[in-house]
Amino acid sequence: MHVIIDLCVVPLGVGVSVSSYVAQCQRVIEASGLNYRMHAYGTNIEGPWDDVMAVVKACHERVHGMGAPRITTTLKMGTRTDRDQRMDDKVASVETLLRDG
Amino acid sequence: MHVIIDLCVVPLGVGVSVSSYVAQCQRVIEASGLNYRMHAYGTNIEGPWDDVMAVVKACHERVHGMGAPRITTTLKMGTRTDRDQRMDDKVASVETLLRDG
Amino acid sequence: MHVIIDLCVVPLGVGVSVSSYVAQCQRVIEASGLNYRMHAYGTNIEGPWDDVMAVVKACHERVHGMGAPRITTTLKMGTRTDRDQRMDDKVASVETLLRDG
Amino acid sequence: MHVIIDLCVVPLGVGVSVSSYVAQCQRVIEASGLNYRMHAYGTNIEGPWDDVMAVVKACHERVHGMGAPRITTTLKMGTRTDRDQRMDDKVASVETLLRDG
Repeated sequence: MHVIIDLCVVPLGVGVSVSSYVAQCQRVIEASGLNYRMHAYGTNIEGPWDDVMAVVKACHERVHGMGAPRITTTLKMGTRTDRDQRMDDKVASVETLLRDG
Repeated sequence: MHVIIDLCVVPLGVGVSVSSYVAQCQRVIEASGLNYRMHAYGTNIEGPWDDVMAVVKACHERVHGMGAPRITTTLKMGTRTDRDQRMDDKVASVETLLRDG
Repeated sequence: MHVIIDLCVVPLGVGVSVSSYVAQCQRVIEASGLNYRMHAYGTNIEGPWDDVMAVVKACHERVHGMGAPRITTTLKMGTRTDRDQRMDDKVASVETLLRDG
Repeated sequence: MHVIIDLCVVPLGVGVSVSSYVAQCQRVIEASGLNYRMHAYGTNIEGPWDDVMAVVKACHERVHGMGAPRITTTLKMGTRTDRDQRMDDKVASVETLLRDG
């Protein structure tokens, strides 16, 4: 089961700046070899369900390992069985409609 | 790693009423033996990370198995290493503050 | 336009315990007169769109006013035009299916 | 109050393909004049709170106007009072850490 997620990991109890924790999550995601793209409020990741969810867990472990006592994460997860669809397809189909519409 | 999640599974391509799909997810959650509580916009579930995430996957599989071609899920996930905290503790600590404040 | 939301306000830069901020949000919500129900990972609120969204804004203002320098909020928002549906209806229709199914 | 949001509008009861509805939301966002960027699972938008939230409402109105009987939206919203921060700053500060780290 292929899944596209949008992951936003927020450490609590570490002060107001969270960018160093987000950067470490990016390293965890990069190391997974999965396709991903960061935006201003999270990171899109796609791949087989178990691989993607292992990355989410590894991000929590890494951020706790850095000393964050608490984490709250928001995740969107999309699966479909009617056809194969990738992150790039989703953006492209909207952009095509905008260009042609 | 104990996790408290808030799970909201939304099937697409099945018409406007989704309650039968939500009900099947409740059965999946119930069968897991994990502690959970449904509200009007999702279900809180808590337990060991892998067990809880297995339930999320099983919900996707069940809803696709019912014929839904596409699912979009929103998930909040909280973990903490500073202390043990359960769903009931979270609600109780706010209610105590409201009563005493 | 009637809306049902699920609101989760998370203050950053205030330490690991956020329950006093959540309690103040509950007071803001209570003062609005809108129908609401707190759960372990947020609060369901329903009512006219502008009134509900004014409460979300007031929560941010209150939490910043308490000294939180940063807030990240997760919101789910549901509207429908096919029929009138309340928070209690959503839970009831799933519970009916579970009982009769 | 400046806010950065991540908006994901999902129409229900319109079949499995939702890209035409997402494209119309992009037109609503574009017409607002606010700074925004689409990704594979939503759109980042930033600006004054009331302007940004007016766009979210306008998206619901547009999508219902296109015939969607039901919408479920997921929104992340970030505000801060300690300093001025834009969408581009958030991405840049993580990228700087990744490059230098």
